[in-house]
Amino acid sequence: MTDTDTHAHVDEKETGRVEAFSDGVFAIAITLLVLDLKVPRDAELKGSLAAALLRQWPIFLAYLTSFATILVMWVNHHVMFSRIRRVDSPFLFLNGFLLLFVTFVPFPTSLVAEYFRASGPSARTAGLVFSGTYVLIAVAYNLLWRYASTGKHLLDPHVSEERVREITRKYAPGIPLYLIAVVLALFSVTASIALCLAMAVFFAFTGSLPRRPSIENP
Amino acid sequence: MTDTDTHAHVDEKETGRVEAFSDGVFAIAITLLVLDLKVPRDAELKGSLAAALLRQWPIFLAYLTSFATILVMWVNHHVMFSRIRRVDSPFLFLNGFLLLFVTFVPFPTSLVAEYFRASGPSARTAGLVFSGTYVLIAVAYNLLWRYASTGKHLLDPHVSEERVREITRKYAPGIPLYLIAVVLALFSVTASIALCLAMAVFFAFTGSLPRRPSIENP
Amino acid sequence: MTDTDTHAHVDEKETGRVEAFSDGVFAIAITLLVLDLKVPRDAELKGSLAAALLRQWPIFLAYLTSFATILVMWVNHHVMFSRIRRVDSPFLFLNGFLLLFVTFVPFPTSLVAEYFRASGPSARTAGLVFSGTYVLIAVAYNLLWRYASTGKHLLDPHVSEERVREITRKYAPGIPLYLIAVVLALFSVTASIALCLAMAVFFAFTGSLPRRPSIENP
Amino acid sequence: MTDTDTHAHVDEKETGRVEAFSDGVFAIAITLLVLDLKVPRDAELKGSLAAALLRQWPIFLAYLTSFATILVMWVNHHVMFSRIRRVDSPFLFLNGFLLLFVTFVPFPTSLVAEYFRASGPSARTAGLVFSGTYVLIAVAYNLLWRYASTGKHLLDPHVSEERVREITRKYAPGIPLYLIAVVLALFSVTASIALCLAMAVFFAFTGSLPRRPSIENP
Repeated sequence: MTDTDTHAHVDEKETGRVEAFSDGVFAIAITLLVLDLKVPRDAELKGSLAAALLRQWPIFLAYLTSFATILVMWVNHHVMFSRIRRVDSPFLFLNGFLLLFVTFVPFPTSLVAEYFRASGPSARTAGLVFSGTYVLIAVAYNLLWRYASTGKHLLDPHVSEERVREITRKYAPGIPLYLIAVVLALFSVTASIALCLAMAVFFAFTGSLPRRPSIENP
Repeated sequence: MTDTDTHAHVDEKETGRVEAFSDGVFAIAITLLVLDLKVPRDAELKGSLAAALLRQWPIFLAYLTSFATILVMWVNHHVMFSRIRRVDSPFLFLNGFLLLFVTFVPFPTSLVAEYFRASGPSARTAGLVFSGTYVLIAVAYNLLWRYASTGKHLLDPHVSEERVREITRKYAPGIPLYLIAVVLALFSVTASIALCLAMAVFFAFTGSLPRRPSIENP
Repeated sequence: MTDTDTHAHVDEKETGRVEAFSDGVFAIAITLLVLDLKVPRDAELKGSLAAALLRQWPIFLAYLTSFATILVMWVNHHVMFSRIRRVDSPFLFLNGFLLLFVTFVPFPTSLVAEYFRASGPSARTAGLVFSGTYVLIAVAYNLLWRYASTGKHLLDPHVSEERVREITRKYAPGIPLYLIAVVLALFSVTASIALCLAMAVFFAFTGSLPRRPSIENP
Repeated sequence: MTDTDTHAHVDEKETGRVEAFSDGVFAIAITLLVLDLKVPRDAELKGSLAAALLRQWPIFLAYLTSFATILVMWVNHHVMFSRIRRVDSPFLFLNGFLLLFVTFVPFPTSLVAEYFRASGPSARTAGLVFSGTYVLIAVAYNLLWRYASTGKHLLDPHVSEERVREITRKYAPGIPLYLIAVVLALFSVTASIALCLAMAVFFAFTGSLPRRPSIENP
């Protein structure tokens, strides 16, 4: 093997291991969400089990929103990594910063589930923590991409400048839109969560770029 | 490397990462089931610990059924992926839709464990949620395969048309059979769970296709 | 690539995915054990926190035993897979049968932790379930190896007949020795757990065979 | 393939599987930390939910410290493995010894969260267990590296003697510094945790060595 081949091999193995670790964290965080779904106990049953489960619908809404958000983040993280050929220490720590908030998601989910129908201020606080977590995730995600793409120092050299700017533009709306969800939470927690769910759907469509090199290098 | 080799390499890496993420989710969901097994507390012991554990047999039955179902789904998911050479965004989200219900399995398992011996309506509700979850999994699984195999656009070109139809036929009974389990739950939760367990065994045998290319291209 | 190369490639990928799934299950089961360690609550503190933690020593002993057993099982599973070149459906299900008991380990661990210092019959039941689980693991492990090695149909062709018999001999003592631990639990739960811990150490040394092909094909 | 190529291939696959298992354990342990974050229940609310969450700040501090420590340990474990070309049985068990303490981290984190604001002796005990766990992790980490690097028998032959000594020097401060954190816990739990967090930041910068072979073999 030539020296360049060796570098490419080492870089690909390194990048692969960071991807695998991140995938593990995404997979575990998404699966732990189910622990936030509580079986109604006998004591809480003021009617049938069916009625008790239906009264819990906000828990299922929060579960679905968090599941969709982590899934879409994973797909986009995966797309981002398909552009990356090397990792360095600051990148590893920025990635860790993103994972910190990803692993945190089950907590605000649980908080919303518990306080969704509580009195005004408590429900508002829960909604603010929920949407605020997503603001932090959007910040961490944009930081990671900006760091990797600046001067293209960690990117696959085949990715064009124009492509990089296009991706940057696609990720940009995350922060302001999640900030709107934070403001919405002051008025209606339901509307705030609905916006977060809508954004997961939005990023599912805009964030998923074509991955085939043929499309990029026509 | 030729351009075609590069594509094949990228596609294989992509597909591999989706498989790895899915495997992670299957592995975590199957292992979290153990958290539904509760150690009987002193207060509940109206006799010996042995008797208390034996009284919990429905919990162990539900655990075994969920374990077997997730394991068989994993084996079949694995077989399905051995036919697939490329992934695209809709495929990623259909796969995510399947994983949503897979990660959800510990909740109905816990629900059945809690309400198995409760009064009629509650036990029935638990049984309906349990078997209903499996209907949704069967729907998601069939959707994923139909999408991947339509026009064979994501499949390995070596898989024959006839083979594709044969696989489609093998997966098809899942939806009607799990619907029967839903109807059964209205009469007997035990019978409904027993049917779900029997179906895991059924798919263990019919779903596991030969994987060696030699067998398909004689 | 020749046809034989393609087969070897497909087989290696398949075997790798089964290893990865199993590794995931082992890794999660070993990490979930920590959830059996309970923080002593204020109510239980009849003295200092230090004293409360020291009174919990059986929980730490059970934790250590289960951790060591799963770790050693993982190392040996890993060694077994280094001999295997192909997987088929019965092998996948025998492997799933082994994983069923591996994921179950946190439950008997929790049971022993709870009832270790209870009255005679309850402690005995807990000890029987704990050591009985290890008997089932040993049975599943031996079944998996016997199936893979019979006629060497799933093994690397470079593994000699003599080597196969030697490995079979090394795994064999597991079942009788864990049965002794079951019998011991009737008299002393401590002695039974101590034997299980000793066996983890025993298999750590005897089960870990050299992995370098050079040693096998001199 | 030549015989040497086969060895290199087998060794790389083996090493890769140990890395993957370890990554799995790190990923799960880091994600399970979120379960230590408890949603304040209605009963505990002597004011608003916001105030209840703010009163819980020590839980978030302990969460952040444990997250940062596991992340940095993972990055360094990853860097260590980039130097390693072979694994043997003692290495597997030393690695298992390290993972034992890594999986244990959620327990002292939970202990500190519960007893941070308790009376003197209980808070002190919690702080001692927390920092003491990190001493054991540092010991296990240094043992693993010393074993692998002694006579360079498991290392990549391209790593120079000087490089090995440099790495050994960089890891060395861990044990004495965490021992200082243990002593600090006798006086102030906050100061002790703050030192642990500072050390995670310290190792983030010093422990992350360049990974590109070009830098080592100029």
